[in-house]
Amino acid sequence: METNKITIFDSTLRDGAQAEGISFSVEDKLRILHTLDKAGIDIIEAGNPGSNPKDIEFFDLIKNEELEHAQICAFGSTRRPGVKPEEDDNLQKILNSGAKVAALFGKSSPFQVEKIIHTTLDENLNMIEDSVRYLTDNGIEVIFDAEHFFDGYKLDPDYAIETLKAAERGGATVLTLCDTNGGSLPSEIVEIINRVQQEIKIPVGIHAHNDSGLAVANSIAAVEAGATQVQGTFLGFGERCGNANLTAIIPNLQLKLDYNCIDPDGLKKLTNASIKIAEISNYNLTGREPFIGKSAFAHKGGMHIDAVLKDPKSFEHIVPDLVGNERRLLMSEVAGRGTIINRINEIDPSLTKQSEETTLVMEKIKELEYEGYQFEGAESSIKLLIRKELGAFKPFFIIEDYKTIGSKVQNGETLSASAIVKVNVNGKTVIHAAEGDGPVNALDIALRSALEEFYPAIEDMRLTDFKVRVIDKGATASKVRVLIESSDGEEIWTTVGVSTDIIEASLIALIDSIEYKLLSDMEKQMKAFHLV
Amino acid sequence: METNKITIFDSTLRDGAQAEGISFSVEDKLRILHTLDKAGIDIIEAGNPGSNPKDIEFFDLIKNEELEHAQICAFGSTRRPGVKPEEDDNLQKILNSGAKVAALFGKSSPFQVEKIIHTTLDENLNMIEDSVRYLTDNGIEVIFDAEHFFDGYKLDPDYAIETLKAAERGGATVLTLCDTNGGSLPSEIVEIINRVQQEIKIPVGIHAHNDSGLAVANSIAAVEAGATQVQGTFLGFGERCGNANLTAIIPNLQLKLDYNCIDPDGLKKLTNASIKIAEISNYNLTGREPFIGKSAFAHKGGMHIDAVLKDPKSFEHIVPDLVGNERRLLMSEVAGRGTIINRINEIDPSLTKQSEETTLVMEKIKELEYEGYQFEGAESSIKLLIRKELGAFKPFFIIEDYKTIGSKVQNGETLSASAIVKVNVNGKTVIHAAEGDGPVNALDIALRSALEEFYPAIEDMRLTDFKVRVIDKGATASKVRVLIESSDGEEIWTTVGVSTDIIEASLIALIDSIEYKLLSDMEKQMKAFHLV
Repeated sequence: METNKITIFDSTLRDGAQAEGISFSVEDKLRILHTLDKAGIDIIEAGNPGSNPKDIEFFDLIKNEELEHAQICAFGSTRRPGVKPEEDDNLQKILNSGAKVAALFGKSSPFQVEKIIHTTLDENLNMIEDSVRYLTDNGIEVIFDAEHFFDGYKLDPDYAIETLKAAERGGATVLTLCDTNGGSLPSEIVEIINRVQQEIKIPVGIHAHNDSGLAVANSIAAVEAGATQVQGTFLGFGERCGNANLTAIIPNLQLKLDYNCIDPDGLKKLTNASIKIAEISNYNLTGREPFIGKSAFAHKGGMHIDAVLKDPKSFEHIVPDLVGNERRLLMSEVAGRGTIINRINEIDPSLTKQSEETTLVMEKIKELEYEGYQFEGAESSIKLLIRKELGAFKPFFIIEDYKTIGSKVQNGETLSASAIVKVNVNGKTVIHAAEGDGPVNALDIALRSALEEFYPAIEDMRLTDFKVRVIDKGATASKVRVLIESSDGEEIWTTVGVSTDIIEASLIALIDSIEYKLLSDMEKQMKAFHLV
Repeated sequence: METNKITIFDSTLRDGAQAEGISFSVEDKLRILHTLDKAGIDIIEAGNPGSNPKDIEFFDLIKNEELEHAQICAFGSTRRPGVKPEEDDNLQKILNSGAKVAALFGKSSPFQVEKIIHTTLDENLNMIEDSVRYLTDNGIEVIFDAEHFFDGYKLDPDYAIETLKAAERGGATVLTLCDTNGGSLPSEIVEIINRVQQEIKIPVGIHAHNDSGLAVANSIAAVEAGATQVQGTFLGFGERCGNANLTAIIPNLQLKLDYNCIDPDGLKKLTNASIKIAEISNYNLTGREPFIGKSAFAHKGGMHIDAVLKDPKSFEHIVPDLVGNERRLLMSEVAGRGTIINRINEIDPSLTKQSEETTLVMEKIKELEYEGYQFEGAESSIKLLIRKELGAFKPFFIIEDYKTIGSKVQNGETLSASAIVKVNVNGKTVIHAAEGDGPVNALDIALRSALEEFYPAIEDMRLTDFKVRVIDKGATASKVRVLIESSDGEEIWTTVGVSTDIIEASLIALIDSIEYKLLSDMEKQMKAFHLV
């Protein structure tokens, strides 16, 4: 193993899915899997095939998925008491999952063994050793997750160590010490890991929970004490207060303590990957998240801004660019031109950061962001916006007017709303009406039926996801941001709309989605005719 | 000073106000001041009179305010270079503020002295000593905030220590070491504080920022190393990623390390005080906040719930009641009868897991979950559901019909929708109409206006969050799940609605929210009259 390498083990899809309010669809999971892989995560725990039938389906689905870097890991329990490993259902499901790595958890606390799973301390040691050996003999690399290790150690250090030795004898490659209830302090973690390392030979990992607000600190303390694997989740999603937040741990270890966790290019993708995962999870970032939050390098106080203008390191602990984030001076917003110029050059390679057009685009983006737009999750909308600002866009259609009527569904009725839309396509105005399930759906159907006459390709399009987020708090009249994901079977794209009216916001995103489809088809056709 | 006493210094009103998105009115500040005082905070930093005219007004206002426990503190800078203390505007404003305690900050880093405030290292030492002495001579107790202390120490340990000695000579009572940029690790904090304590005699404090996600850990490490004052903010509000979060630090110190921070009764008010301060600050709690978050003792995984029912300490690091929080067993598909019977027993203690009524409730929940409901985030809806299934609920109102009309916003218009609602309250039918921003908002306004006539308490209610999630994917006609969070300033509750029509889903959640409010008020009244 290379010097200073810390293996990063992500459990967003497993422990993260245990968080209140989080519920991933199969598509969500696939997108998260690839986002984590591209960010350079070493091991991705994709689910618990033994406890969740949906996770079995997901493991089946990803058997042929190509990853750039990461290994897939299956999570599961040691065998049940009194059952042979080869007859244990959980272990069979791990074997059948197709994962080459398993995170196998067993109890390291005598309290948990006797009071919760109701078996003897000896049988628990057998369960650990047998189960690890069985998977290892069947060609699976086993990381042993010593559940409740620190609490167990505090009750009975010798027994807790015995559970590790059982896993070591069974052939585990890493022993991950879990602060399952999140109640330990860094000083305890260090003391206990020092003792563990005197007793066992193989590498040690850390799995911390954030119930005391200390999961990041405990993970770092463990690494400083000698642990070489860190388990956590993106943004710290997880049961109760969440798991150790990898988006804070990775940059701390890598930028401050010179450990090697992920590729430096992956580190630069950290902010973007975090935003993507938050979006997929329908999770409202507070902005205050260390390293990757919108406010992480935002300076508000007057004295702070003055100092940062003299030298950013006066009030910044790292250079924001290292984690793909950026500085913001809240009094006078100076957004990064560097990011946007690449996209501008896709349309007009002659433009530079200093061009007047670049300024216009930047100003438009700032204006929209001020209104509540957020383009991180909606690249297709930004592409259209740039074209429009550069004058490289001609509208495919204009919506002149619409009306929606909604009502309470009474007995016998099925559709609760209707919509009328008036669209102008190349000077020709058509009016279409439709019924639907709610006003947004009715409007969507009416608009498509009006446009299909002119643009039959729209028939291939379908909405694959629709997310709504309130951006200012308070009341149903707050602004909402609607994200629409669409697909034509070949490509998936996302667009955004913001308004105080949910119908208007949806319509803006829907229009962008249709325009993006028509534009992409046109570009493909032009390429086929070698016109570009 | 009593043994093990740690002085808690709250800066929510000063450093907390530096957070992006936070802006306190005078009324907000007064409410926060009393909330902190009642929670047992020792020192409340109420503002920076030298830099902010509004803070001067606030200090004037609170000169006659009676507090139960806390001391008011004014924050400010050491004198400017080359100016006598008695001629320095900042110091005069601190004297005039009426505060008996000042937190006076000076630079402890040679980089900051030379590159940012452009003075000499010697003059900076004079500025510190003179300013502290001037305030002390005028009867003010001075806490010296050694700004950028840890970064300064890393550059030049001797100079950083000299700045502390200057403040000590001037008569400061506490030297607070600041990790201003939030970049330090607990191991560094401990090492540096150990050295500081060899060099100076007076008590040391800690002021940490959370840029590395380590502010809580750094504060605890400092106390373990000997610091006796902790500065922070409620919920960790503050510049960039925020300040050290007192709502996590206090219970860690008090419940795990046996320090005495606040009165145990104050500790029991911690959850409530945090919710209040979040409300006043218009801040969306994520729920995952350690100790005080809604999810902090919420159990979702089936194995976790089983274990917690056997013994809560299997998955809880402290007893939630100690901080005024409570255990929640989340209603998800994985949760069984064990979870639901506790809630049923709140309404009818005679029922058991085997009762027919329990079966009915379970079946109803399963049916609704199959339809797309998810109750883990919506306890208030489940409470109403159980009452309804048990026949222990009489509707406060029935919506007989509604209509919404939405349209494209044309020039000059502001409200894009209107709604008509027909409500039956105790046999009396009323029809109300309203305009709004979008149909959901219009319907919300119309419904409230119809009901307020019968139930004036509804006026205290406001929606604090509104979340929409598509549950079957694909197209705008997919089912949506709407979660509505409401507050009446004392309690926060969440309700859920599911429908293919977003208006219908919102209305279901809105009705539950109003019913929950009316039911709670009724229950409180019955308790007050000893009827239950």
